[in-house]
Amino acid sequence: MSKPSLPQGTRDFGPEVVRKRQYIFNTIRSVFELYGFQPLETPAMENLETLMGKYGEEGDKLIFRILNNGLENPDKHQQARADFEKVLEGKNVKGLTERALKYDLTIPFARYVAMNHGQLTFPFKRYQIQPVWRADRPQKGRYREFYQCDADIVGSNALLNEVELTNIYNEVFTQLGIADYELRINSRKILTALAEFCGGADKMIDITIAIDKLDKIGLDKVKAELAQRGLNDEQIATIEKYLNISGTNEEKLQLIKSLIGHLETGKKGIEELEFVNRSRSEAGAIGNLIIDFTLARGLNYYTGIIFEAKAPATVKIGSIGGGGRYDDLTGLFGVPNIPGVGISFGVDRIYDVMEELKLFPEGVYTGTQVLFFNMGASESTTAFSAMQSLRKQGVRCELFHEPAKMDKQFKYAEKKNIGFIVIIGSQEVQNNTGVIKNLKTGTQETVSLANLTNKLFI
Amino acid sequence: MSKPSLPQGTRDFGPEVVRKRQYIFNTIRSVFELYGFQPLETPAMENLETLMGKYGEEGDKLIFRILNNGLENPDKHQQARADFEKVLEGKNVKGLTERALKYDLTIPFARYVAMNHGQLTFPFKRYQIQPVWRADRPQKGRYREFYQCDADIVGSNALLNEVELTNIYNEVFTQLGIADYELRINSRKILTALAEFCGGADKMIDITIAIDKLDKIGLDKVKAELAQRGLNDEQIATIEKYLNISGTNEEKLQLIKSLIGHLETGKKGIEELEFVNRSRSEAGAIGNLIIDFTLARGLNYYTGIIFEAKAPATVKIGSIGGGGRYDDLTGLFGVPNIPGVGISFGVDRIYDVMEELKLFPEGVYTGTQVLFFNMGASESTTAFSAMQSLRKQGVRCELFHEPAKMDKQFKYAEKKNIGFIVIIGSQEVQNNTGVIKNLKTGTQETVSLANLTNKLFI
Repeated sequence: MSKPSLPQGTRDFGPEVVRKRQYIFNTIRSVFELYGFQPLETPAMENLETLMGKYGEEGDKLIFRILNNGLENPDKHQQARADFEKVLEGKNVKGLTERALKYDLTIPFARYVAMNHGQLTFPFKRYQIQPVWRADRPQKGRYREFYQCDADIVGSNALLNEVELTNIYNEVFTQLGIADYELRINSRKILTALAEFCGGADKMIDITIAIDKLDKIGLDKVKAELAQRGLNDEQIATIEKYLNISGTNEEKLQLIKSLIGHLETGKKGIEELEFVNRSRSEAGAIGNLIIDFTLARGLNYYTGIIFEAKAPATVKIGSIGGGGRYDDLTGLFGVPNIPGVGISFGVDRIYDVMEELKLFPEGVYTGTQVLFFNMGASESTTAFSAMQSLRKQGVRCELFHEPAKMDKQFKYAEKKNIGFIVIIGSQEVQNNTGVIKNLKTGTQETVSLANLTNKLFI
Repeated sequence: MSKPSLPQGTRDFGPEVVRKRQYIFNTIRSVFELYGFQPLETPAMENLETLMGKYGEEGDKLIFRILNNGLENPDKHQQARADFEKVLEGKNVKGLTERALKYDLTIPFARYVAMNHGQLTFPFKRYQIQPVWRADRPQKGRYREFYQCDADIVGSNALLNEVELTNIYNEVFTQLGIADYELRINSRKILTALAEFCGGADKMIDITIAIDKLDKIGLDKVKAELAQRGLNDEQIATIEKYLNISGTNEEKLQLIKSLIGHLETGKKGIEELEFVNRSRSEAGAIGNLIIDFTLARGLNYYTGIIFEAKAPATVKIGSIGGGGRYDDLTGLFGVPNIPGVGISFGVDRIYDVMEELKLFPEGVYTGTQVLFFNMGASESTTAFSAMQSLRKQGVRCELFHEPAKMDKQFKYAEKKNIGFIVIIGSQEVQNNTGVIKNLKTGTQETVSLANLTNKLFI
């Protein structure tokens, strides 16, 4: 048997990494719940037809399809061969690949809402923290299996929801210690108005695609791309003026008003931003919210406010979350008129930010808190009882599995980053005491077993 | 577009079900950690060759294989067609299906230990709570995607580990309120000794298979099967005597000694059971541990103590957990001599037991605890601040998304099983008060906003 390995782009998470990831997940989960969001879990597998055609041509190619079982049945071979020819042509065939791994959390959520909308209470506020799979080329920071972490409110047009979502970002990042995050917002309506102003709504896609690249390629290349996409000098000058808007949020809002405030869509977009900006200040969470007219969020289904959360500039990690408002979640599944707004957290990148800024709390580095040494069968009986009473008090402990040299037991404690050891030898059994040693400070003392917990600074 | 649906044998978990499942997972997780076990997570996808050949012929057929991406490249068609012919013959071909969904947690764990054994500290105590996938025919209580929940200690032969695992079962079931569970134990060594006693170790498999069916088919049919499998009357009489052993654990141990205690393997098996039985009594957890010589645990790799946890007899749900000791976890992956012992919890069945016995705590039925009514834009500002300060105190709350009729807002609270509502109208804004209503008791009172938390009995 060859040496075992992992599929490219997938990862094992050992104990310390799981604890760190759980720390992030638990923080996000508890904030979602404080804000009235409820958990949803959908299967890893969806019917292939649920997913296909939802992610664009490029996206569809990255869906992992599952081969149907039972193909070795000879009755099925003729059909299977015909189906396989279609697969080779890039088509999808139910007889061969009926199921696929989910590619994101949004489409399965839409499928769930479409299937259950009669039973759900709207607005329906759900969060979902689950893995998704993409057959992307693996590279640094990009995996084939990774977690998404989404919260959406559907069945409501109220801007209050957008305000709540900005507060969730603020609360999560504050709790995680990422104080210098930036939350950039814009409205798709403002981009629509800009396109209108530059000669027609049909320019919207061209403008959005070009603007979306600003961060990466710079203004000059964006202008070149706009020219290539058929915009004239005057239009490009307007877009440049738009992209150069700067100042405080209030100053930016003034400037955008003078540029596109006379257009109906522009006015609506500005009102949205004003509402969120004002409510956010009223809620006392100021400073991190930045109105950014260069924010476009690619080519997706957003129609109102859009969000992008960025890591502190010092760590050069970029986006750690994003989202926005959409008009129609479930239309694709035959249930129209369910608008919504949602955000997501980029957990892998948040993890990297926290590593780099050393933000994980001490606790995540410790599994077992106390190791009881194994000093022989009869001493172990006493150690065992002492250990059970610590566990009843919530202390994580273990008794070394066999009587071994002290050295070996010390080494085990050290390697597992266990903070305290307790030694109960024959002398201690007689006196009903134990020797506690704090492995960080090196101090040790003999204490009554009844008094053990008080002596552990856990 | 046709009505969306879920793949057969998979499930969506809505809010209440997720909360109930989380309650079970969190209980098990915290007990595992109290006992010094550390979390591990492995990917959903493994290389197909990691899984194949590990689960017997029947098991291999139930593995979900993932079709490789990029097959539409014409250069690959000829090879792909040849590979596909092999798939139709029931073979596995790397060029077509390189990856598969994991079928259990044990083989990926073994793969992880084999890949990382140089870095791990032994004994390595890991727990793992993750979904697995099997292309089984879906039926009541059997799913194609379901969670497993395992704890194993590897790199140790000490029986102390078995004792700890029985205590984990006890602690988890006690915390969940499943007080009347039964933990049945036996030792594979005793079954080996029985086979030896009945004419040779080559009878071990026949005897184990037949005994394993006792619960389902009864003694007479087991005897018939044994006869069919070539055992003679005398041997069958011995096995019947063995299966009829009854009484207290101590009485059973006496009887088994007189039957097979003279054999070396039998003696060892009896010592194992005696050790676990005695240690368990010393730890004060008595009553639920039942030595059961009819326990066989199918045809697997167990070599020592085996466990089976059973639901209280009243609910007729049967096994809710199991496990045992094995000699060689990682030999299949080229790393010999890593023995271990492990247990698992059957979470879906535990869920059913808890539903039937109504053991879930009140809390799991509530998401949002307090709903603030939306009485208009300006009143909402006050409500919003009051809500934010409740959240800071850990109270889960939300403000209704829009000013709507009281009726509608009441209905929302009711449908979401929210316990309290707070109404802040213009009068209340002036007085800095709110009207709290307890929706369960129907009582209501006007209180100062500063005093809100104290009035919520949460």
